Amino acid sequence: MKKSVARIALAIVALSLASAASAQVKPEDQIKFRKAGYGFMSWNMGKIKTNLEGTYDAAQVTAAANAIAGIANSGMGALYGPGTDKAVGNQKTRVKPELFQNMQEVGKLAGDFNSAANNLAKVAASGDAAAVKTAFGDLGKTCKACHDKFREE
Amino acid sequence: MKKSVARIALAIVALSLASAASAQVKPEDQIKFRKAGYGFMSWNMGKIKTNLEGTYDAAQVTAAANAIAGIANSGMGALYGPGTDKAVGNQKTRVKPELFQNMQEVGKLAGDFNSAANNLAKVAASGDAAAVKTAFGDLGKTCKACHDKFREE
Repeated sequence: MKKSVARIALAIVALSLASAASAQVKPEDQIKFRKAGYGFMSWNMGKIKTNLEGTYDAAQVTAAANAIAGIANSGMGALYGPGTDKAVGNQKTRVKPELFQNMQEVGKLAGDFNSAANNLAKVAASGDAAAVKTAFGDLGKTCKACHDKFREE
Repeated sequence: MKKSVARIALAIVALSLASAASAQVKPEDQIKFRKAGYGFMSWNMGKIKTNLEGTYDAAQVTAAANAIAGIANSGMGALYGPGTDKAVGNQKTRVKPELFQNMQEVGKLAGDFNSAANNLAKVAASGDAAAVKTAFGDLGKTCKACHDKFREE
C-alpha cells in the first residue's frame, strides 16, 4: 500500500516536471520545433552519407556529427508535451498516439539514439572514415527503431 | 589583363564549389533545412532566456548552447544555393534577394554569429550565469545584425 502511494506520488512529480518543461512553449510550437530538430538532423545525416559514398571531408563530417549530437542532447523530450499527439493549428505531426502511452520505451529508444549520436561525434573527430561508417550505421538503426514503432509512414 | 583573367577564373571556381556543396540538396529542401536550423536555434535561445530570467539550470543552458553552436558550425552557407532567393514549391522564405548580392558582407555577419555561438557554448560550460547573460546578449546582437539587413519583417 505504502509502495503504491509512493509510486503514484513519483508519477505525479514526473508529470509536473514534464509539464513545467514544456509549459513555456505552446503545443503548436513544440511540434514545429521538434520537426525542425529532426529536419536539421536529416540534412546532416545526408551530408555524412554523401561523404561516405564519395570524397571524404573529415571537417564536414565532424561538423555534421556535432550538429546532430548537439540537437540530440538538447532535451527534445520537452517537445512532446500534452496536446502534441495530433495536428495543432498549422502543424501536422506523424507521431503515433501510442508514443505517449509508452514513455518508458520511448525513453529507452531516445537514450539509445543519444548514445549513438554522441559516439558518432566522437568517432568523427578521429577522422577514421571506416569507423564513421559503422557509427553512422549504428545511429541510423536507432532512428529507425523509433520510426518503425512510433511514426506514421 | 592577366589579373582579370585570374580573377574570373577564381570566381568560376568559387561558384563551382558553392554549386557542388548545394547540388545534392534541391532548392526547396535547402530553404526547408535552413528554416529548420534557425527554428531549432530559436527554441534553444528561448530556453536560455527563460533560464536567465528564472531559475538557472546550468545543464539545460549548456545543452541549449551546444545545440546552437553545433547548428551554427554546420555549414549553413550551403543552404543558400542558386534558386533559394525566393519561395520554391511549398517553401516560403523571408530572405531578401539582397543577401545573394552581398555575400562578402553576409560572410562577415555569419562569422560574427559563429564566433558568438561558440563563445556562448564555452561560457555556458563554466556555469557562470552572469557571463552567460553577456554572451547570450552578444549572440542576440549578431542574429539581429543579419535579420535587420537581410530578412523581411
